[in-house]
Amino acid sequence: MSGAAESSRESERGRVTLIGAGPGDPDLITVLGLRRLRAADVVLHDRLAAPELLSEAKEDAEIVDVGKRPGDDVQARQRRIEKLMVGRALTGSHVVRLKGGDPAVFGRGGEEIEACAAAGVPCEVVPGVSSFTAAAAAAGIPLTHRGVSLGFAVVSARNSEGGEPDWEGLSGADTVVVLMASRRLARIGQGLIAAGRKPSTPAVIVERASTPEEKIVSATLESLAVGEFSGTIEPPCVLIVGHVAGPARG
Amino acid sequence: MSGAAESSRESERGRVTLIGAGPGDPDLITVLGLRRLRAADVVLHDRLAAPELLSEAKEDAEIVDVGKRPGDDVQARQRRIEKLMVGRALTGSHVVRLKGGDPAVFGRGGEEIEACAAAGVPCEVVPGVSSFTAAAAAAGIPLTHRGVSLGFAVVSARNSEGGEPDWEGLSGADTVVVLMASRRLARIGQGLIAAGRKPSTPAVIVERASTPEEKIVSATLESLAVGEFSGTIEPPCVLIVGHVAGPARG
Repeated sequence: MSGAAESSRESERGRVTLIGAGPGDPDLITVLGLRRLRAADVVLHDRLAAPELLSEAKEDAEIVDVGKRPGDDVQARQRRIEKLMVGRALTGSHVVRLKGGDPAVFGRGGEEIEACAAAGVPCEVVPGVSSFTAAAAAAGIPLTHRGVSLGFAVVSARNSEGGEPDWEGLSGADTVVVLMASRRLARIGQGLIAAGRKPSTPAVIVERASTPEEKIVSATLESLAVGEFSGTIEPPCVLIVGHVAGPARG
Repeated sequence: MSGAAESSRESERGRVTLIGAGPGDPDLITVLGLRRLRAADVVLHDRLAAPELLSEAKEDAEIVDVGKRPGDDVQARQRRIEKLMVGRALTGSHVVRLKGGDPAVFGRGGEEIEACAAAGVPCEVVPGVSSFTAAAAAAGIPLTHRGVSLGFAVVSARNSEGGEPDWEGLSGADTVVVLMASRRLARIGQGLIAAGRKPSTPAVIVERASTPEEKIVSATLESLAVGEFSGTIEPPCVLIVGHVAGPARG
């Protein structure tokens, strides 16, 4: 076979798999995600995916830490990741991008899917366990519960422009889940009360769900609002607000 | 060791693990979930968990189909499951309850956690991949996307009293995910338009996400509302509404 034909076949094999690596516990990756990781030629990871997972990669796999560095511009970093990911796939590699939680939820997974599509690189998404269902599991509570919570909303404490969620526009969600909440617990409590929720509404804060450092703290909107937990909670943290978090769920 | 002491030790070992078995593909169970399943003395399952998973149980494990039977009263069935689950754990068994998707999301997981607590039975929850993130993965779309979707709401098409979600109260959620939507697609489209969303808002319907029978259909709120898909979609189905579902996500 000529070198050119071989190289063309190589490039046909190139592809990207975005894997939801789960909330922190390496055993919360899916069986399919683990299988793809073990077959990868290139693994792109950051601190949001469990570091233990890297030992599952092939011995000769290229492992690249694409995590945030001091002074990094977040957009520039994202474009750098996409360029690396697409570039390696175009030279024939099977690239696995390990993402914390699930790729569809606050992980810029959509941007990475688009980068692959723009370059004509096949992209498979393997869903994962989101940090917020892991937080619910850790706290022993559901997000929906008959007669108590008919649905839930999931938001980030802060959008990319630095603004706050539209708390009033989420009044129809019995349960509100806030990700990346650790530095904004008081503002979230104040915002939800101002939007009409009772100060006594129960809440639970779960820090580093599913890891050995997991910490679970019970709160109310009022205790959040007065700053009772400010400075005591480290990221990553999930806040679950609503009667599902109460002792009697009511 | 006396029989009584042995029996006391046996009962101390009894416990329940609620496992999120994932959206349908048996390989989308987590590594931890699979490990617990393989160690179980008793496995309670229904049609929402992948049937292939049952072959992972120990040869002498007791496997009980607790799925719905014709004419079943839904509350009576749920109490029957809880009684069986707690009863087996109290006689010393490690009981695994396989649940479709994630136990915290529309699976009565909260009720099963409460039943264990009431009986003094230790209950561990292993989170799983929800059907809605699997649907997003299948459709190659995110649920959040920079500048397009800052958060999402997850509701059931119909609550236990037969009522509809408070669509206006979810106006702050850029993306709306509706589970158990197959029989109500037109009403959902109408309801979301009446609540102020544009008829041109894109949507995607994912039937049996992650299984060989997976089907992905693009829609808009208008095409849903006029009944274009009524009668053509089978459960289980996930509907994702919002600009994340559009070709240009905007």
